[in-house]
Amino acid sequence: MGLVYQETFTMPFDLCDVKQDAKLPLLLAYCLTVSGRQSAKLGRSDDYVLENYNLVWIITDYEVSIKRLPKFNETITIETEAISYNKFFCYRQFHIYDQEGNLLMDILTYFALMDPDTRKVASIPEDLVQPYQSECVKKMRRAPKMRELENPQVKTYHVRYFDIDMNGHVNNSKYLDWMYDVLSYDFLRHHRPRQLQLKYIKEVAPGDQDIASAFQLEGLTSYHHISSQGQINAQAIIDWEPID
Amino acid sequence: MGLVYQETFTMPFDLCDVKQDAKLPLLLAYCLTVSGRQSAKLGRSDDYVLENYNLVWIITDYEVSIKRLPKFNETITIETEAISYNKFFCYRQFHIYDQEGNLLMDILTYFALMDPDTRKVASIPEDLVQPYQSECVKKMRRAPKMRELENPQVKTYHVRYFDIDMNGHVNNSKYLDWMYDVLSYDFLRHHRPRQLQLKYIKEVAPGDQDIASAFQLEGLTSYHHISSQGQINAQAIIDWEPID
Repeated sequence: MGLVYQETFTMPFDLCDVKQDAKLPLLLAYCLTVSGRQSAKLGRSDDYVLENYNLVWIITDYEVSIKRLPKFNETITIETEAISYNKFFCYRQFHIYDQEGNLLMDILTYFALMDPDTRKVASIPEDLVQPYQSECVKKMRRAPKMRELENPQVKTYHVRYFDIDMNGHVNNSKYLDWMYDVLSYDFLRHHRPRQLQLKYIKEVAPGDQDIASAFQLEGLTSYHHISSQGQINAQAIIDWEPID
Repeated sequence: MGLVYQETFTMPFDLCDVKQDAKLPLLLAYCLTVSGRQSAKLGRSDDYVLENYNLVWIITDYEVSIKRLPKFNETITIETEAISYNKFFCYRQFHIYDQEGNLLMDILTYFALMDPDTRKVASIPEDLVQPYQSECVKKMRRAPKMRELENPQVKTYHVRYFDIDMNGHVNNSKYLDWMYDVLSYDFLRHHRPRQLQLKYIKEVAPGDQDIASAFQLEGLTSYHHISSQGQINAQAIIDWEPID
Protein backbone atom coordinates (compact mmCIF):
# COMPACT_ATOMS: atom_id res chain seq x y z
CA MET A 1 0.00 0.00 0.00
CA GLY A 2 1.13 3.56 -0.67
CA LEU A 3 1.59 6.54 1.60
CA VAL A 4 -1.70 8.05 2.68
CA TYR A 5 -2.17 11.81 2.61
CA GLN A 6 -5.16 13.77 3.82
CA GLU A 7 -6.57 17.26 4.08
CA THR A 8 -9.76 18.70 5.48
CA PHE A 9 -11.82 21.12 3.43
CA THR A 10 -14.99 23.13 4.01
CA MET A 11 -17.26 23.25 0.96
CA PRO A 12 -17.40 26.85 -0.32
CA PHE A 13 -20.37 28.52 -2.06
CA ASP A 14 -18.76 28.43 -5.50
CA LEU A 15 -18.24 24.66 -5.39
CA CYS A 16 -21.94 23.98 -4.74
CA ASP A 17 -24.91 23.76 -7.07
CA VAL A 18 -28.49 24.95 -6.74
CA LYS A 19 -29.26 21.90 -4.56
CA GLN A 20 -26.43 22.88 -2.17
CA ASP A 21 -24.58 19.74 -3.32
CA ALA A 22 -20.94 19.73 -4.39
CA LYS A 23 -20.53 20.36 -8.12
CA LEU A 24 -19.03 17.01 -9.10
CA PRO A 25 -16.70 18.32 -11.86
CA LEU A 26 -15.22 20.92 -9.52
CA LEU A 27 -14.94 18.49 -6.61
CA LEU A 28 -12.97 16.05 -8.79
CA ALA A 29 -10.74 18.94 -9.88
CA TYR A 30 -10.23 19.91 -6.24
CA CYS A 31 -9.20 16.36 -5.36
CA LEU A 32 -6.42 16.65 -7.94
CA THR A 33 -5.08 19.71 -6.15
CA VAL A 34 -4.95 17.61 -2.97
CA SER A 35 -2.94 14.85 -4.61
CA GLY A 36 -0.81 17.57 -6.23
CA ARG A 37 0.11 18.77 -2.75
CA GLN A 38 1.02 15.24 -1.69
CA SER A 39 3.26 14.96 -4.74
CA ALA A 40 4.93 18.30 -4.00
CA LYS A 41 5.58 17.18 -0.41
CA LEU A 42 7.22 14.03 -1.71
CA GLY A 43 9.43 16.06 -4.05
CA ARG A 44 7.45 15.09 -7.14
CA SER A 45 5.65 18.30 -8.11
CA ASP A 46 4.40 18.70 -11.68
CA ASP A 47 7.25 21.15 -12.29
CA TYR A 48 9.80 18.59 -11.06
CA VAL A 49 8.35 15.89 -13.30
CA LEU A 50 8.43 18.20 -16.31
CA GLU A 51 11.94 19.49 -15.64
CA ASN A 52 13.53 16.15 -14.81
CA TYR A 53 11.63 13.74 -17.06
CA ASN A 54 10.00 16.05 -19.65
CA LEU A 55 6.70 14.36 -18.83
CA VAL A 56 3.28 15.50 -17.64
CA TRP A 57 0.61 13.52 -15.80
CA ILE A 58 -2.67 12.95 -17.58
CA ILE A 59 -5.82 11.25 -16.33
CA THR A 60 -7.37 8.57 -18.47
CA ASP A 61 -10.19 7.21 -16.30
CA TYR A 62 -12.30 7.93 -13.26
CA GLU A 63 -14.39 5.39 -11.36
CA VAL A 64 -16.51 7.19 -8.78
CA SER A 65 -18.95 5.82 -6.20
CA ILE A 66 -21.08 8.38 -4.44
CA LYS A 67 -22.96 7.58 -1.29
CA ARG A 68 -23.74 11.25 -0.81
CA LEU A 69 -22.26 14.42 -2.30
CA PRO A 70 -20.73 16.81 0.22
CA LYS A 71 -23.03 19.74 1.05
CA PHE A 72 -22.43 23.50 1.18
CA ASN A 73 -20.44 24.49 4.28
CA GLU A 74 -19.80 20.86 5.23
CA THR A 75 -16.29 20.06 6.38
CA ILE A 76 -14.96 16.94 4.70
CA THR A 77 -11.75 14.97 4.83
CA ILE A 78 -10.15 14.04 1.53
CA GLU A 79 -7.78 11.12 1.86
CA THR A 80 -5.66 9.98 -1.04
CA GLU A 81 -3.19 7.22 -1.78
CA ALA A 82 -1.29 6.19 -4.90
CA ILE A 83 -2.19 2.53 -4.46
CA SER A 84 -0.37 0.77 -7.30
CA TYR A 85 1.24 1.16 -10.69
CA ASN A 86 2.31 -0.88 -13.69
CA LYS A 87 4.26 -0.07 -16.85
CA PHE A 88 1.87 2.63 -18.09
CA PHE A 89 -0.60 3.48 -15.34
CA CYS A 90 -0.66 4.71 -11.77
CA TYR A 91 -3.83 4.07 -9.81
CA ARG A 92 -4.76 6.61 -7.19
CA GLN A 93 -7.64 6.37 -4.77
CA PHE A 94 -9.47 9.19 -3.02
CA HIS A 95 -11.81 8.68 -0.11
CA ILE A 96 -14.02 11.52 1.03
CA TYR A 97 -15.35 11.33 4.58
CA ASP A 98 -17.80 13.45 6.52
CA GLN A 99 -16.99 14.77 10.00
CA GLU A 100 -18.26 11.59 11.66
CA GLY A 101 -15.90 9.51 9.53
CA ASN A 102 -18.60 8.13 7.23
CA LEU A 103 -17.44 7.43 3.70
CA LEU A 104 -19.21 9.77 1.26
CA MET A 105 -17.28 9.08 -1.94
CA ASP A 106 -14.76 6.63 -3.32
CA ILE A 107 -12.82 7.81 -6.37
CA LEU A 108 -10.36 5.74 -8.35
CA THR A 109 -8.26 7.61 -10.93
CA TYR A 110 -5.98 6.21 -13.61
CA PHE A 111 -2.94 8.40 -14.26
CA ALA A 112 -0.53 8.06 -17.17
CA LEU A 113 2.53 10.05 -18.22
CA MET A 114 2.69 11.92 -21.50
CA ASP A 115 5.55 13.53 -23.38
CA PRO A 116 4.20 17.08 -23.94
CA ASP A 117 6.15 17.47 -27.21
CA THR A 118 5.11 14.26 -28.95
CA ARG A 119 1.76 13.95 -27.03
CA LYS A 120 2.62 10.24 -26.67
CA VAL A 121 2.18 8.17 -23.53
CA ALA A 122 5.47 7.21 -21.85
CA SER A 123 6.31 4.30 -19.59
CA ILE A 124 6.53 5.11 -15.89
CA PRO A 125 10.06 5.61 -14.53
CA GLU A 126 10.59 3.57 -11.35
CA ASP A 127 12.42 6.36 -9.51
CA LEU A 128 9.69 8.88 -10.27
CA VAL A 129 7.03 6.89 -8.41
CA GLN A 130 9.30 5.41 -5.73
CA PRO A 131 8.51 8.05 -3.02
CA TYR A 132 4.80 7.18 -3.06
CA GLN A 133 5.56 3.62 -1.84
CA SER A 134 2.90 2.23 -4.17
CA GLU A 135 2.77 -1.41 -5.08
CA CYS A 136 4.15 -2.38 -8.48
CA VAL A 137 1.64 -4.64 -10.19
CA LYS A 138 1.89 -6.47 -13.49
CA LYS A 139 -1.75 -6.39 -14.30
CA MET A 140 -3.48 -3.59 -16.15
CA ARG A 141 -6.84 -2.66 -14.72
CA ARG A 142 -9.58 -2.84 -17.25
CA ALA A 143 -11.77 0.22 -17.09
CA PRO A 144 -15.49 -0.54 -17.42
CA LYS A 145 -16.47 -0.88 -21.05
CA MET A 146 -18.21 2.05 -22.70
CA ARG A 147 -20.64 1.50 -25.53
CA GLU A 148 -22.08 2.98 -28.70
CA LEU A 149 -25.07 5.29 -28.44
CA GLU A 150 -28.21 4.62 -30.46
CA ASN A 151 -30.28 7.66 -31.42
CA PRO A 152 -28.74 9.86 -28.75
CA GLN A 153 -29.89 13.37 -27.92
CA VAL A 154 -27.18 15.84 -28.86
CA LYS A 155 -26.42 19.42 -27.89
CA THR A 156 -23.61 21.54 -29.25
CA TYR A 157 -21.21 23.44 -27.01
CA HIS A 158 -18.39 25.85 -27.69
CA VAL A 159 -15.10 26.05 -25.92
CA ARG A 160 -15.02 29.26 -23.89
CA TYR A 161 -11.92 31.21 -23.02
CA PHE A 162 -11.97 30.23 -19.35
CA ASP A 163 -12.45 26.53 -20.23
CA ILE A 164 -8.80 26.44 -21.30
CA ASP A 165 -6.42 25.77 -18.45
CA MET A 166 -2.73 26.48 -18.01
CA ASN A 167 -1.89 23.39 -20.04
CA GLY A 168 -3.43 25.07 -23.10
CA HIS A 169 -6.27 22.54 -23.42
CA VAL A 170 -9.82 22.27 -22.23
CA ASN A 171 -9.75 21.49 -18.53
CA ASN A 172 -10.74 17.92 -17.64
CA SER A 173 -13.64 19.14 -15.54
CA LYS A 174 -15.38 20.71 -18.58
CA TYR A 175 -16.15 17.35 -20.24
CA LEU A 176 -18.22 16.29 -17.28
CA ASP A 177 -19.80 19.75 -17.26
CA TRP A 178 -20.99 19.24 -20.85
CA MET A 179 -22.21 15.73 -20.01
CA TYR A 180 -24.18 17.06 -17.08
CA ASP A 181 -25.66 20.05 -18.82
CA VAL A 182 -27.12 18.11 -21.73
CA LEU A 183 -29.31 16.15 -19.29
CA SER A 184 -31.40 19.31 -18.67
CA TYR A 185 -31.96 21.46 -15.62
CA ASP A 186 -35.13 19.63 -14.71
CA PHE A 187 -33.52 16.17 -14.68
CA LEU A 188 -30.52 17.37 -12.65
CA ARG A 189 -32.70 19.22 -10.17
CA HIS A 190 -34.47 15.94 -9.34
CA HIS A 191 -31.70 13.33 -9.53
CA ARG A 192 -28.37 12.74 -7.92
CA PRO A 193 -25.44 10.71 -9.24
CA ARG A 194 -24.58 7.42 -7.51
CA GLN A 195 -21.91 6.05 -9.81
CA LEU A 196 -19.74 7.59 -12.52
CA GLN A 197 -17.38 6.00 -14.99
CA LEU A 198 -15.51 8.55 -17.05
CA LYS A 199 -12.95 7.94 -19.77
CA TYR A 200 -10.78 10.59 -21.42
CA ILE A 201 -9.77 9.71 -24.94
CA LYS A 202 -8.50 12.81 -26.69
CA GLU A 203 -7.98 16.38 -25.53
CA VAL A 204 -9.98 19.26 -26.97
CA ALA A 205 -7.75 22.11 -28.09
CA PRO A 206 -8.79 25.81 -28.05
CA GLY A 207 -9.30 25.77 -31.82
CA ASP A 208 -11.94 23.01 -31.88
CA GLN A 209 -15.14 24.92 -32.43
CA ASP A 210 -18.13 22.60 -32.14
CA ILE A 211 -18.28 20.17 -29.23
CA ALA A 212 -21.12 17.66 -29.38
CA SER A 213 -22.41 16.33 -26.07
CA ALA A 214 -24.52 13.27 -26.86
CA PHE A 215 -26.40 11.11 -24.39
CA GLN A 216 -28.91 8.39 -24.10
CA LEU A 217 -30.90 7.65 -20.96
CA GLU A 218 -31.89 4.07 -20.17
CA GLY A 219 -33.81 3.74 -16.98
CA LEU A 220 -31.69 5.65 -14.50
CA THR A 221 -28.41 5.19 -16.35
CA SER A 222 -27.11 7.83 -18.76
CA TYR A 223 -24.51 7.03 -21.43
CA HIS A 224 -22.44 9.94 -22.74
CA HIS A 225 -20.12 10.81 -25.61
CA ILE A 226 -18.27 14.08 -26.05
CA SER A 227 -16.95 14.49 -29.58
CA SER A 228 -15.44 17.12 -31.84
CA GLN A 229 -14.27 17.03 -35.42
CA GLY A 230 -15.54 13.48 -35.84
CA GLN A 231 -13.50 12.15 -32.93
CA ILE A 232 -14.64 10.99 -29.52
CA ASN A 233 -12.98 13.03 -26.76
CA ALA A 234 -14.56 11.46 -23.69
CA GLN A 235 -17.17 8.91 -22.67
CA ALA A 236 -19.08 8.29 -19.48
CA ILE A 237 -21.73 6.18 -17.81
CA ILE A 238 -23.62 7.71 -14.89
CA ASP A 239 -26.09 5.95 -12.58
CA TRP A 240 -28.70 8.26 -11.11
CA GLU A 241 -31.15 8.13 -8.24
CA PRO A 242 -34.30 10.24 -7.93
CA ILE A 243 -34.31 12.72 -5.07
CA ASP A 244 -37.21 12.18 -2.71
CA MET B 1 -13.62 54.18 8.39
CA GLY B 2 -14.85 50.61 8.82
CA LEU B 3 -13.22 47.59 10.40
CA VAL B 4 -10.54 46.09 8.19
CA TYR B 5 -10.40 42.33 7.64
CA GLN B 6 -7.77 40.41 5.74
CA GLU B 7 -6.85 36.91 4.60
CA THR B 8 -3.96 35.48 2.63
CA PHE B 9 -4.59 33.16 -0.27
CA THR B 10 -2.41 31.19 -2.67
CA MET B 11 -3.72 31.19 -6.24
CA PRO B 12 -4.76 27.62 -7.16
CA PHE B 13 -4.63 26.06 -10.64
CA ASP B 14 -8.40 26.21 -11.16
CA LEU B 15 -8.54 29.95 -10.56
CA CYS B 16 -5.97 30.68 -13.28
CA ASP B 17 -6.28 31.02 -17.04
CA VAL B 18 -4.09 29.87 -19.90
CA LYS B 19 -1.77 32.87 -19.27
CA GLN B 20 -1.35 31.78 -15.63
CA ASP B 21 -3.26 34.93 -14.61
CA ALA B 22 -6.16 34.91 -12.14
CA LYS B 23 -9.51 34.39 -13.85
CA LEU B 24 -11.09 37.74 -13.03
CA PRO B 25 -14.70 36.48 -12.62
CA LEU B 26 -13.58 33.78 -10.17
CA LEU B 27 -11.26 36.12 -8.28
CA LEU B 28 -14.11 38.60 -7.75
CA ALA B 29 -16.30 35.70 -6.56
CA TYR B 30 -13.54 34.60 -4.18
CA CYS B 31 -13.30 38.12 -2.72
CA LEU B 32 -16.98 37.86 -1.80
CA THR B 33 -16.27 34.73 0.21
CA VAL B 34 -13.64 36.73 2.11
CA SER B 35 -16.08 39.52 2.98
CA GLY B 36 -18.63 36.81 3.79
CA ARG B 37 -16.23 35.49 6.44
CA GLN B 38 -15.79 38.98 7.88
CA SER B 39 -19.57 39.32 8.10
CA ALA B 40 -19.91 35.93 9.81
CA LYS B 41 -17.23 36.94 12.34
CA LEU B 42 -19.18 40.10 13.10
CA GLY B 43 -22.38 38.11 13.64
CA ARG B 44 -23.87 39.19 10.31
CA SER B 45 -23.74 36.03 8.18
CA ASP B 46 -26.06 35.75 5.17
CA ASP B 47 -28.16 33.27 7.16
CA TYR B 48 -28.47 35.75 10.03
CA VAL B 49 -29.54 38.54 7.68
CA LEU B 50 -32.14 36.32 6.06
CA GLU B 51 -33.50 34.95 9.32
CA ASN B 52 -33.63 38.24 11.20
CA TYR B 53 -34.45 40.74 8.46
CA ASN B 54 -35.76 38.54 5.61
CA LEU B 55 -33.25 40.25 3.32
CA VAL B 56 -30.39 39.13 1.08
CA TRP B 57 -27.37 41.11 -0.11
CA ILE B 58 -27.06 41.77 -3.81
CA ILE B 59 -24.27 43.48 -5.73
CA THR B 60 -25.19 46.26 -8.12
CA ASP B 61 -21.80 47.59 -9.26
CA TYR B 62 -18.11 46.82 -9.39
CA GLU B 63 -15.35 49.33 -10.04
CA VAL B 64 -12.06 47.50 -10.46
CA SER B 65 -8.55 48.84 -11.06
CA ILE B 66 -5.95 46.25 -11.96
CA LYS B 67 -2.26 47.00 -11.78
CA ARG B 68 -1.49 43.33 -12.29
CA LEU B 69 -3.59 40.18 -11.95
CA PRO B 70 -2.36 37.68 -9.37
CA LYS B 71 -0.45 34.78 -10.92
CA PHE B 72 -0.72 31.01 -10.46
CA ASN B 73 0.78 29.91 -7.12
CA GLU B 74 1.28 33.50 -5.98
CA THR B 75 0.34 34.21 -2.38
CA ILE B 76 -1.74 37.35 -2.09
CA THR B 77 -3.35 39.27 0.73
CA ILE B 78 -6.98 40.27 0.30
CA GLU B 79 -7.95 43.15 2.56
CA THR B 80 -11.53 44.33 2.78
CA GLU B 81 -13.45 47.08 4.51
CA ALA B 82 -17.09 48.17 4.45
CA ILE B 83 -16.19 51.83 4.03
CA SER B 84 -19.52 53.63 4.06
CA TYR B 85 -23.27 53.31 3.56
CA ASN B 86 -26.33 55.41 2.88
CA LYS B 87 -30.06 54.66 2.75
CA PHE B 88 -29.83 52.04 0.01
CA PHE B 89 -26.17 51.13 -0.59
CA CYS B 90 -23.18 49.80 1.28
CA TYR B 91 -19.79 50.46 -0.30
CA ARG B 92 -17.13 47.86 0.27
CA GLN B 93 -13.53 48.06 -0.81
CA PHE B 94 -11.10 45.24 -1.46
CA HIS B 95 -7.36 45.70 -1.84
CA ILE B 96 -5.25 42.86 -3.14
CA TYR B 97 -1.55 42.97 -2.32
CA ASP B 98 1.40 40.83 -3.39
CA GLN B 99 3.83 39.40 -0.84
CA GLU B 100 5.96 42.56 -0.90
CA GLY B 101 2.92 44.65 -0.02
CA ASN B 102 2.49 46.15 -3.51
CA LEU B 103 -1.10 46.92 -4.44
CA LEU B 104 -2.23 44.69 -7.32
CA MET B 105 -5.94 45.43 -7.44
CA ASP B 106 -8.42 47.89 -6.00
CA ILE B 107 -12.06 46.76 -6.07
CA LEU B 108 -15.04 48.84 -5.03
CA THR B 109 -18.37 47.01 -4.74
CA TYR B 110 -21.85 48.45 -4.23
CA PHE B 111 -24.07 46.23 -2.10
CA ALA B 112 -27.81 46.61 -1.66
CA LEU B 113 -30.41 44.61 0.28
CA MET B 114 -33.27 42.82 -1.42
CA ASP B 115 -36.42 41.22 -0.10
CA PRO B 116 -36.21 37.70 -1.62
CA ASP B 117 -40.01 37.38 -1.80
CA THR B 118 -40.85 40.66 -3.52
CA ARG B 119 -37.42 40.98 -5.27
CA LYS B 120 -37.53 44.65 -4.26
CA VAL B 121 -34.64 46.65 -2.85
CA ALA B 122 -34.99 47.50 0.85
CA SER B 123 -33.52 50.34 2.87
CA ILE B 124 -30.56 49.41 5.05
CA PRO B 125 -31.35 48.83 8.76
CA GLU B 126 -28.95 50.77 10.97
CA ASP B 127 -28.44 47.91 13.44
CA LEU B 128 -27.63 45.47 10.65
CA VAL B 129 -24.58 47.43 9.50
CA GLN B 130 -23.54 48.80 12.91
CA PRO B 131 -20.89 46.10 13.65
CA TYR B 132 -18.89 47.03 10.52
CA GLN B 133 -18.24 50.54 11.93
CA SER B 134 -18.72 52.02 8.48
CA GLU B 135 -19.36 55.70 7.97
CA CYS B 136 -22.95 56.75 7.30
CA VAL B 137 -22.98 59.09 4.32
CA LYS B 138 -25.84 61.02 2.79
CA LYS B 139 -24.53 61.02 -0.71
CA MET B 140 -25.19 58.28 -3.24
CA ARG B 141 -22.17 57.36 -5.30
CA ARG B 142 -22.79 57.67 -8.98
CA ALA B 143 -21.50 54.61 -10.81
CA PRO B 144 -19.74 55.44 -14.09
CA LYS B 145 -22.24 55.91 -16.88
CA MET B 146 -22.73 53.05 -19.33
CA ARG B 147 -23.77 53.72 -22.90
CA GLU B 148 -25.67 52.34 -25.87
CA LEU B 149 -23.85 50.07 -28.30
CA GLU B 150 -23.81 50.86 -32.01
CA ASN B 151 -23.53 47.88 -34.35
CA PRO B 152 -22.18 45.58 -31.68
CA GLN B 153 -20.90 42.06 -32.28
CA VAL B 154 -23.23 39.57 -30.60
CA LYS B 155 -22.88 35.96 -29.51
CA THR B 156 -25.58 33.82 -27.97
CA TYR B 157 -25.04 31.82 -24.79
CA HIS B 158 -27.20 29.40 -22.87
CA VAL B 159 -27.50 29.11 -19.15
CA ARG B 160 -25.88 25.84 -18.06
CA TYR B 161 -26.86 23.81 -15.05
CA PHE B 162 -23.75 24.70 -13.07
CA ASP B 163 -24.18 28.43 -13.85
CA ILE B 164 -27.06 28.48 -11.36
CA ASP B 165 -25.96 29.04 -7.80
CA MET B 166 -27.61 28.26 -4.48
CA ASN B 167 -29.74 31.40 -4.80
CA GLY B 168 -31.47 29.82 -7.80
CA HIS B 169 -30.15 32.40 -10.29
CA VAL B 170 -27.20 32.68 -12.61
CA ASN B 171 -24.15 33.37 -10.51
CA ASN B 172 -22.80 36.93 -10.75
CA SER B 173 -19.47 35.68 -12.07
CA LYS B 174 -21.08 34.24 -15.23
CA TYR B 175 -22.02 37.64 -16.69
CA LEU B 176 -18.40 38.66 -16.79
CA ASP B 177 -17.57 35.22 -18.20
CA TRP B 178 -19.92 35.84 -21.13
CA MET B 179 -18.51 39.36 -21.59
CA TYR B 180 -14.99 37.98 -21.70
CA ASP B 181 -15.69 35.05 -23.96
CA VAL B 182 -17.31 37.10 -26.73
CA LEU B 183 -14.03 39.03 -27.16
CA SER B 184 -12.40 35.89 -28.66
CA TYR B 185 -9.58 33.66 -27.53
CA ASP B 186 -7.07 35.52 -29.64
CA PHE B 187 -7.87 38.95 -28.18
CA LEU B 188 -7.83 37.65 -24.59
CA ARG B 189 -4.59 35.77 -25.14
CA HIS B 190 -2.87 39.05 -26.06
CA HIS B 191 -4.51 41.62 -23.79
CA ARG B 192 -4.96 42.13 -20.08
CA PRO B 193 -7.63 44.13 -18.29
CA ARG B 194 -6.61 47.37 -16.54
CA GLN B 195 -9.96 48.77 -15.49
CA LEU B 196 -13.43 47.26 -15.22
CA GLN B 197 -16.78 48.87 -14.53
CA LEU B 198 -19.56 46.35 -14.17
CA LYS B 199 -23.22 47.00 -13.48
CA TYR B 200 -25.83 44.36 -12.65
CA ILE B 201 -29.33 45.34 -13.69
CA LYS B 202 -31.53 42.26 -13.66
CA GLU B 203 -30.90 38.63 -12.70
CA VAL B 204 -31.05 35.83 -15.24
CA ALA B 205 -33.24 32.97 -14.06
CA PRO B 206 -32.72 29.29 -15.04
CA GLY B 207 -35.60 29.48 -17.51
CA ASP B 208 -34.16 32.26 -19.67
CA GLN B 209 -32.90 30.42 -22.70
CA ASP B 210 -30.98 32.79 -24.98
CA ILE B 211 -28.44 35.12 -23.45
CA ALA B 212 -26.97 37.68 -25.85
CA SER B 213 -23.48 38.91 -25.08
CA ALA B 214 -22.94 42.03 -27.21
CA PHE B 215 -19.82 44.15 -27.38
CA GLN B 216 -18.16 46.93 -29.23
CA LEU B 217 -14.43 47.61 -29.16
CA GLU B 218 -13.18 51.18 -29.48
CA GLY B 219 -9.45 51.43 -29.34
CA LEU B 220 -8.56 49.43 -26.26
CA THR B 221 -11.90 49.89 -24.51
CA SER B 222 -14.66 47.30 -24.80
CA TYR B 223 -18.31 48.12 -24.06
CA HIS B 224 -20.57 45.23 -23.11
CA HIS B 225 -24.25 44.41 -22.75
CA ILE B 226 -25.69 41.12 -21.54
CA SER B 227 -29.36 40.79 -22.37
CA SER B 228 -32.13 38.18 -22.41
CA GLN B 229 -35.77 38.37 -23.38
CA GLY B 230 -35.37 41.96 -24.56
CA GLN B 231 -34.02 43.17 -21.23
CA ILE B 232 -30.51 44.25 -20.30
CA ASN B 233 -29.15 42.11 -17.47
CA ALA B 234 -25.69 43.62 -17.06
CA GLN B 235 -23.36 46.16 -18.62
CA ALA B 236 -19.64 46.73 -18.47
CA ILE B 237 -16.78 48.83 -19.72
CA ILE B 238 -13.33 47.26 -19.76
CA ASP B 239 -10.03 48.99 -20.52
CA TRP B 240 -7.39 46.67 -21.97
CA GLU B 241 -3.65 46.77 -22.47
CA PRO B 242 -1.71 44.71 -24.99
CA ILE B 243 0.66 42.15 -23.53
CA ASP B 244 4.25 42.66 -24.67
